[in-house]
Amino acid sequence: MWLRTRCDIRFNLSVPTPFVLMLRPRSGAQQWVAREEYRVVPSLPAVEFTDIYGNLCQRVTAMPPEFAVYTTAEVMTADMVDKAPGGEFVEVQNLPDAVLIYLLPSRYCESDRFGQMATDISRDCLPGYDQAAAITTWVHQNINYRPGNSDLSVSAVEVNTRQWGVCRDLSHLCIALCRSLSIPARLVVGFLHELKPMDLHAWFEVFVAGRWYTFDPTEDQQRGGYVVIGYGRDAGDVAVYNQFGPTVYPVDQTVIVERIADVSQVPNSLP
Amino acid sequence: MWLRTRCDIRFNLSVPTPFVLMLRPRSGAQQWVAREEYRVVPSLPAVEFTDIYGNLCQRVTAMPPEFAVYTTAEVMTADMVDKAPGGEFVEVQNLPDAVLIYLLPSRYCESDRFGQMATDISRDCLPGYDQAAAITTWVHQNINYRPGNSDLSVSAVEVNTRQWGVCRDLSHLCIALCRSLSIPARLVVGFLHELKPMDLHAWFEVFVAGRWYTFDPTEDQQRGGYVVIGYGRDAGDVAVYNQFGPTVYPVDQTVIVERIADVSQVPNSLP
Amino acid sequence: MWLRTRCDIRFNLSVPTPFVLMLRPRSGAQQWVAREEYRVVPSLPAVEFTDIYGNLCQRVTAMPPEFAVYTTAEVMTADMVDKAPGGEFVEVQNLPDAVLIYLLPSRYCESDRFGQMATDISRDCLPGYDQAAAITTWVHQNINYRPGNSDLSVSAVEVNTRQWGVCRDLSHLCIALCRSLSIPARLVVGFLHELKPMDLHAWFEVFVAGRWYTFDPTEDQQRGGYVVIGYGRDAGDVAVYNQFGPTVYPVDQTVIVERIADVSQVPNSLP
Amino acid sequence: MWLRTRCDIRFNLSVPTPFVLMLRPRSGAQQWVAREEYRVVPSLPAVEFTDIYGNLCQRVTAMPPEFAVYTTAEVMTADMVDKAPGGEFVEVQNLPDAVLIYLLPSRYCESDRFGQMATDISRDCLPGYDQAAAITTWVHQNINYRPGNSDLSVSAVEVNTRQWGVCRDLSHLCIALCRSLSIPARLVVGFLHELKPMDLHAWFEVFVAGRWYTFDPTEDQQRGGYVVIGYGRDAGDVAVYNQFGPTVYPVDQTVIVERIADVSQVPNSLP
Repeated sequence: MWLRTRCDIRFNLSVPTPFVLMLRPRSGAQQWVAREEYRVVPSLPAVEFTDIYGNLCQRVTAMPPEFAVYTTAEVMTADMVDKAPGGEFVEVQNLPDAVLIYLLPSRYCESDRFGQMATDISRDCLPGYDQAAAITTWVHQNINYRPGNSDLSVSAVEVNTRQWGVCRDLSHLCIALCRSLSIPARLVVGFLHELKPMDLHAWFEVFVAGRWYTFDPTEDQQRGGYVVIGYGRDAGDVAVYNQFGPTVYPVDQTVIVERIADVSQVPNSLP
Repeated sequence: MWLRTRCDIRFNLSVPTPFVLMLRPRSGAQQWVAREEYRVVPSLPAVEFTDIYGNLCQRVTAMPPEFAVYTTAEVMTADMVDKAPGGEFVEVQNLPDAVLIYLLPSRYCESDRFGQMATDISRDCLPGYDQAAAITTWVHQNINYRPGNSDLSVSAVEVNTRQWGVCRDLSHLCIALCRSLSIPARLVVGFLHELKPMDLHAWFEVFVAGRWYTFDPTEDQQRGGYVVIGYGRDAGDVAVYNQFGPTVYPVDQTVIVERIADVSQVPNSLP
Repeated sequence: MWLRTRCDIRFNLSVPTPFVLMLRPRSGAQQWVAREEYRVVPSLPAVEFTDIYGNLCQRVTAMPPEFAVYTTAEVMTADMVDKAPGGEFVEVQNLPDAVLIYLLPSRYCESDRFGQMATDISRDCLPGYDQAAAITTWVHQNINYRPGNSDLSVSAVEVNTRQWGVCRDLSHLCIALCRSLSIPARLVVGFLHELKPMDLHAWFEVFVAGRWYTFDPTEDQQRGGYVVIGYGRDAGDVAVYNQFGPTVYPVDQTVIVERIADVSQVPNSLP
Repeated sequence: MWLRTRCDIRFNLSVPTPFVLMLRPRSGAQQWVAREEYRVVPSLPAVEFTDIYGNLCQRVTAMPPEFAVYTTAEVMTADMVDKAPGGEFVEVQNLPDAVLIYLLPSRYCESDRFGQMATDISRDCLPGYDQAAAITTWVHQNINYRPGNSDLSVSAVEVNTRQWGVCRDLSHLCIALCRSLSIPARLVVGFLHELKPMDLHAWFEVFVAGRWYTFDPTEDQQRGGYVVIGYGRDAGDVAVYNQFGPTVYPVDQTVIVERIADVSQVPNSLP
């Protein structure tokens, strides 16, 4: 399906503030970005670089009193995520080099602490895809999903203790559980069509049967309509914005995802 | 200045044809891409990757009978390229690791054959920026610039012999001459405002005084208005499209560059 | 000074066990490896790759009942680490792209939780090198250094609570504190001449005044004699060995560091 | 088999001379470096970096009057290179991103000029491995192999015209021919056991049937005993040493390759 995504964020600032933003979706194996807009207002010198995960990041030093980014993208993405029941666990020695990093514990995914729990949850599963599916179902059923904002510094251990979290928290717990079984897992940040309430979203992917597969512990059913902004080991690495200096909060954040016609069928929108 | 660039290319195909395209400008130290459109018609699965130079490349297998890409970008770029008369030659041992590759000979820039000629041309110059400037001036004055298309497989040695070439050829000769003096040099492909006749363009950059500087042997005056699509050692590495299998030629190619208002001052164009 | 380092590790195994080892020092800006030996016993197919931090990592699947690696290196390293009192804090917007990752929180360095404490410790310091020095001194004086082994899953927050740790733990706390002041900091694992008792060692580096500087909260005095094996965000990323499957512990680990003559003055040792 | 390789090179210098050396074999999919020595005499600050092909390169500024490097390695490598008769051509659209660069023309491999000739030579072959084998055989039989040194700036076109060359030249011609058939091909520089006369050696690899395969147009029979120092598009990218400034030639170069016992069976050689 073709989706138009929009994310606008506005800040009030009292001092010059360096930002590293991650708001430009990339075309990749799972999506194609046909049109895109990224306005920085007021106009400021911004520089883009590629981080270690391949994400496009934008650096800018925003000046008081106001700073806003307006981003829009028109993206072709899958109607339904690929599934692979029975998909095989990849032995660690056979993983691609670049995937190994997703086995390591990270700030919000203390995979070194979840070995027993992951084994219990996935006891009756074939190693691989089915274990990840069982973990996702377990988290969906046992951890209360509360949309909205939460303190970023809540990690998988804490989510598991308090039994509730935002989308990011549920995915962090899934990731920690998967990694503890030596299944590579990474956080994905982006948009989801028909997410309710609409907001930026986070889900996760696991590497089994030779490629990455998508899972989402907040959804009742696996479906499609995902638009990826960035990948990383956890939310510490894939922040839509990282801001340095005195903390500022957005005064306004708008997220819209709507279905559109195939853009190859329509004339240029840019004059 | 803010520029809107457009490059549309259409092909007639008789067999399925793999393409690697390089038509998506990136935001970087010298330009900011605020809006961008990249339509593949008919709609096809396309995948993007980053090459060794940091360029965004699009892979697609086009099907007969027709294939077209329509690309538009709105980009902030400098009104005037930076100049640095007297800018110092960087001793090879002090060059950043990533710059060393631009000292080596490449397909169209046989820098190993131009040592004496480069020394002659830049005899009275301070090492560094002034040598590159003298080389650019010499090529501008001595090699006849003929806009249009030419055989890609003409290298700096051949350009120097026949004394004429397209923009790419003149830059290849400049690059070979600069490298033979141990000045790192790279080809740049992109757009130039008010280029006459309008077309895709190629120029070059040299690394002196700690950074890259722009030169263009086709222009009488150094000016601004450049929009970069890609960097590389020469045109073999920075092709707007590389096509594999039986050779196909574009049946139509449209390039437009026009000045626009600061996009941070205008409302969203995407609905 | 020239040092010969040796690290031998032996394991007893009951099942085939994949390992990712990091035991090959690299030549770099701060050390030169003149001779090196890395024996895997029994002989096994081993493959080396470069991780995202530039470390050389060795992949091998070890077979029961025994597996050992014997590594030796002869390395030129500085007699005294560089110091830079007053060295300037680098504004985030001016940091090299590749350094930004060392500002983010990581598994064992929850920098998002130490802002107030870091501010208190470094209250009277110039921003930059002096803050890092004050933090190192504070940790050296307030956290009890207990050489030996400890549970890897102790993070900076926990070290700060229990007030003691191994070398790695003290460095993790320093790193978390530095990052909370927007000073990039990374863990270093390697060897230290005259460490007592001799063992593998961990220390940290901060990026100030345009480059990385070495600090070590376990030592009374800054000195030299460091040999680097690997860099990373924390010990989760820079493990001398990562082992997957049922946990195995080394049955024997030998570390020796001794001073040797300049190897450029001596004949080949390899016949 | 286990091999001990040795390459010593000595230079006389009249001025300080920057070098980029490539003389440290890496452990990789096809070889394991168990011991290694790399002495720079006199002792000088040397820095190592990884180039775009993954090779380890050493930077040093050598001072007059003399400069020498003494390198030794003990390496496990295959007794026989892998063969894959009938191995399938990989369609360009299915090649890994990182392999695409080996389809492009380069300084000494003008693949854009060999389409007809390559088609003629491999007319009766299955696409893929067999084409590369036919090309190798054709070059072995038709281009006279003359061991020794030759002018580096001889390219595939020129080798094909003059009908003779050193190992590097024959491989350049093979590479140009393979690339013109859309088979990725790269130059390899290193050592070969029982090469006669013994010297540094160059051969090439092609990417077919999902991986790289070794070919050597200088040898009557495919065999093993190869030790890789570096990979690249051609000899311009994989020079054992690149030297900048006034040209200097080695006054002495010694290359030795000898068979040794399995080093995992012997005690430490380093004291």
